[in-house]
Amino acid sequence: MLNIDNMKLIDSLNWRYATKKMNGQPVSQEKVDYIIDAANLAPTSSGLQPFQIIVITNQALKEKIVPLAFNQTQIADCSHLLVFAAWDDVTPERITRVFKYMNEQRGIPDSATEAYVQQLIAIAGSRTREQNFEHAARQAYIAFGMAIAAAAEQQVDATPMEGFNNAELDELLGLKEKGLKSVTLLPLGYRDESGDWLVNLKKVRKPREELLITLN
Amino acid sequence: MLNIDNMKLIDSLNWRYATKKMNGQPVSQEKVDYIIDAANLAPTSSGLQPFQIIVITNQALKEKIVPLAFNQTQIADCSHLLVFAAWDDVTPERITRVFKYMNEQRGIPDSATEAYVQQLIAIAGSRTREQNFEHAARQAYIAFGMAIAAAAEQQVDATPMEGFNNAELDELLGLKEKGLKSVTLLPLGYRDESGDWLVNLKKVRKPREELLITLN
Repeated sequence: MLNIDNMKLIDSLNWRYATKKMNGQPVSQEKVDYIIDAANLAPTSSGLQPFQIIVITNQALKEKIVPLAFNQTQIADCSHLLVFAAWDDVTPERITRVFKYMNEQRGIPDSATEAYVQQLIAIAGSRTREQNFEHAARQAYIAFGMAIAAAAEQQVDATPMEGFNNAELDELLGLKEKGLKSVTLLPLGYRDESGDWLVNLKKVRKPREELLITLN
Repeated sequence: MLNIDNMKLIDSLNWRYATKKMNGQPVSQEKVDYIIDAANLAPTSSGLQPFQIIVITNQALKEKIVPLAFNQTQIADCSHLLVFAAWDDVTPERITRVFKYMNEQRGIPDSATEAYVQQLIAIAGSRTREQNFEHAARQAYIAFGMAIAAAAEQQVDATPMEGFNNAELDELLGLKEKGLKSVTLLPLGYRDESGDWLVNLKKVRKPREELLITLN
């Protein structure tokens, strides 16, 4: 058994579950901002943060998304639907823009990071568009994890979703024009315990010995 | 400004940074277990948890890994190196095993999940081995994020790493025989402030308005 004083995160992760039915109660803007800020603090490869988060509160738009996601009703019954969308490619412009801002904020000249930036541009240039997207998508998953953890900490329910028609959602939201491709959804709201088949099932994870390989 | 009572996670994420120099001080087993347990609590697609975590404390082995990862010295100076490794394929056996255990733990018969399991097997069967691995890798990134957050909460330093020679590391650790492919590294230890060029640089993230697209 663990004997650690501060176990907030584990408590939060044990509290959460992939909510199957939400009750329509709105999440406060403050809590949504908190969840977004946690996602924004996720570490990413070379600090590129190669993704954006689309926040949807429009009810008609949420309802249009339901059939694109196997009719999962949480999308209509949540108050805020987050769509995590990764860069469709990693371009020299995008890389340069990130470092320009970072250097400005740190008060260092662009020349200090120029060699590194050129190296990143060369690496991205050596990969296919699809490989660059895939790498960007992985970074989005780290932020997705942070958002899930932050929602749980704030006792906001959420349902991590990958099962949806990405191409149709991208079309509906005009993501292609923005150089983005959707990767995950995270409806935020509050559970409706009476209508949720999962809420009372035991949370099951691998025994630690199945998860781990220890090399001492 | 946020006005939320409980902001532990954001505080932790602001505290952490990609530690560039570690001082060799060991992390307690209890804290390592906590970090692993947080990773184990990450949500994953259909609950498959398609990855394992290799924990390396052996000094000689850590030193062999340094040159495979651009000579990043944190790998030698950390006390525990975590290697996140995803399933190289999603097979019927692996899917069935997860649900067998889950059903056992929940006290429900396998027949209750049989149709769903067959559906998952069909989906995995319709994808290439590489696509199944890529999907598994994304799940590993959610757990990677949880481990990073948990380490920060426990004031354990960590360095998320993707830049290493995956094929050579897999060879060194015998991961192929285990049906795994390494995706990320996470050295755990304590910062050596005197030798770390990053520790005093401002943490920079996208302004919220650059991260977000809001559809009201």
